[in-house]
Amino acid sequence: MTALTGLTGSTGVTGPRGFVAAGAACGIKESGAPDLALVCTHDRRPVPAAAVFTTNKAKAAPVLVSRAHLDSTGGHAAAVVCSSGNANAQTGPAGRHAAERMCELIASGIGSSPEEVLVCQTGLIGIPFPIDRFESGFHGLVGSLDGSADAGRLAAVAMMTTDTVAKEVLIEGIGFSVGGMAKGAAMLSPNMATMLAVLTTDARCDAEALSRILANAVADSFNELTVDGCCSTNDTVVLLSSGLAGAVPDDTLDEAVTQACGHLAEAMVADAEGASKVARITVSGAATDAQAAQAARRVAQSMLVKCSLNGADPYWGRIVSELGSAGVDFDPDRVAVNYGGVTVCSQGIALGHDSAAVAKHLAGNRVEIGCDLDLGTGSASVLTCDLGHGYIDENRGTS
Amino acid sequence: MTALTGLTGSTGVTGPRGFVAAGAACGIKESGAPDLALVCTHDRRPVPAAAVFTTNKAKAAPVLVSRAHLDSTGGHAAAVVCSSGNANAQTGPAGRHAAERMCELIASGIGSSPEEVLVCQTGLIGIPFPIDRFESGFHGLVGSLDGSADAGRLAAVAMMTTDTVAKEVLIEGIGFSVGGMAKGAAMLSPNMATMLAVLTTDARCDAEALSRILANAVADSFNELTVDGCCSTNDTVVLLSSGLAGAVPDDTLDEAVTQACGHLAEAMVADAEGASKVARITVSGAATDAQAAQAARRVAQSMLVKCSLNGADPYWGRIVSELGSAGVDFDPDRVAVNYGGVTVCSQGIALGHDSAAVAKHLAGNRVEIGCDLDLGTGSASVLTCDLGHGYIDENRGTS
Repeated sequence: MTALTGLTGSTGVTGPRGFVAAGAACGIKESGAPDLALVCTHDRRPVPAAAVFTTNKAKAAPVLVSRAHLDSTGGHAAAVVCSSGNANAQTGPAGRHAAERMCELIASGIGSSPEEVLVCQTGLIGIPFPIDRFESGFHGLVGSLDGSADAGRLAAVAMMTTDTVAKEVLIEGIGFSVGGMAKGAAMLSPNMATMLAVLTTDARCDAEALSRILANAVADSFNELTVDGCCSTNDTVVLLSSGLAGAVPDDTLDEAVTQACGHLAEAMVADAEGASKVARITVSGAATDAQAAQAARRVAQSMLVKCSLNGADPYWGRIVSELGSAGVDFDPDRVAVNYGGVTVCSQGIALGHDSAAVAKHLAGNRVEIGCDLDLGTGSASVLTCDLGHGYIDENRGTS
Repeated sequence: MTALTGLTGSTGVTGPRGFVAAGAACGIKESGAPDLALVCTHDRRPVPAAAVFTTNKAKAAPVLVSRAHLDSTGGHAAAVVCSSGNANAQTGPAGRHAAERMCELIASGIGSSPEEVLVCQTGLIGIPFPIDRFESGFHGLVGSLDGSADAGRLAAVAMMTTDTVAKEVLIEGIGFSVGGMAKGAAMLSPNMATMLAVLTTDARCDAEALSRILANAVADSFNELTVDGCCSTNDTVVLLSSGLAGAVPDDTLDEAVTQACGHLAEAMVADAEGASKVARITVSGAATDAQAAQAARRVAQSMLVKCSLNGADPYWGRIVSELGSAGVDFDPDRVAVNYGGVTVCSQGIALGHDSAAVAKHLAGNRVEIGCDLDLGTGSASVLTCDLGHGYIDENRGTS
């Protein structure tokens, strides 16, 4: 953290030097809300770029196209175009053609090659993408590109689906910065709705190092809340490096990118649908870190545990039951559980405790649950949220 | 099915010759509702017995005790005692002592050895088991043993926790029968609440064959609705063979036991909490049957799919997204999805269809969802139910 001065304001992708952005509406969303976002280098020239894509085998058209573009340029891009309201997933050859067409049109607008444009899309699956609306709307998008904080903000707003707030971040290092915007929404665990994030930095970094840095940062942030590794058809995180701030040590940039991703991940959880509270499940004393992560994910994705969180019920028996079926080394006579640091189960059985303190902690909107397996030194944390009526109400219908 | 004449009435564990049963209340449930059940051979002598226990590493005391007893007798038992209202799980050495003590007391009452008694318990985890209440109540339980259908029924009622109906079955073969009782409750997937079942047969069968037959039957019935393999701390299925009907071919008995387990499994799903409908997810065209089962379980346990079921929303995109992240061979351009036989997605994209027919099917209380991966001949089905407010309301608090 020594090289970082921390978060400053809400300036996002246009915070680092060398980037411009825009947001616009083209009618993909029937409501008329902004549904197109564009992030571009200020001189429209390609720069080193890296991306992490969904591991879902049902990859959406934009994922296939962006991956192919990054491969063909050896990790370079001049722009990232995002649309919201239609995922362009399970849309067949027509969908892939539409995603390619989006890149072609943006490339024609900024004077780059189509392969230097990446594309991210989010929204409903299985509905033909209305490329005609994009064709009539992209001119306005390209025409309004500028480097202001407002332009970055408008791009962040245009990515939103059921998000209630735009999510931006700016991490300032010494002489460089990392900016970003993201959309999350729906309950993020266990079934992550499409998660998109676009990050920028003015630190100079080659494509290979950028790719490694982004993979590390995603593992330590967004992946800590995807809980069961479930990815949507469209999940994408992109990082562009303008290089205008010159080189910085890899580990310094790594730290800043991880911090930026962490802020965006937290913002997503805080904005999860139907959730009244966020809970961090920390498993310690596991045989390995990997086993700790597996056990924490198991607890975090348990519908029964999520219901208990919703009711602020200190029923630790469900937590132990999930730990016991997590497929990790486990001894039911050694496990301990605490809520907000107050131990309620020790050596596998109920422990007398300050129940008022536990009730107060569980009634809050930020819950900490600690599980000590007492078997080794492995530890891990996963963020989750409670399961409330709002989640069902939001997700029981798409029309 | 040739040797079976089918289900006849609701007579349960006392249907097959050679078994008596009883139910009673001893105050484990504060409500005073029946909380003790006993199934015993009519002459109190041990007979071949088999059991399938939870795979959870946090095994409850009764699971540990019953398993040890079966091991020590080489697969024989004279009685099975069940209690409801307290799981006696995560209760440490005192809990294990209490489960042993239950067997000792029943053994003293029926004149058997403690090792010839098996014990099943269900209820809340982590609360010391009130063995004193059992000590004062077991006499009445043993004293009321009889071979009537009413006695079997009372035992089935005494197993219930949040079940709304008692679950019994009797399968009549030619010259033999298989009876059973079970308790399920809570939503059965993905987090199965404790599932207990006690089955009896008068077919003669040695312990080894009985064990094999029960394992097959459980795999084809209860395990098709446990969805993610998650087992509670207490899950137990027991089968006793009195032998009074003489020998029957192994495959005939296998068929009857499987049918009995299937009936009880269906009864559990139909009684799941907060659920307005039951859905069967069938995956065909998978590379292997195992991959089909894995994919079907993935869809069946998806909170988003369950929300769609609750809202009768034909959003097949979520189903495809789950199939794509199920960890099985999958081609997004080959998959097809149908609701009640009406195909809505073919070769990975939306297919024009009779939407009124789909709406009508989804509005019913029994939904069939078919997914064809078009890659091979593997197929499997899993039962699940929708996710409604009732599930949250039932599970957000234990007090």
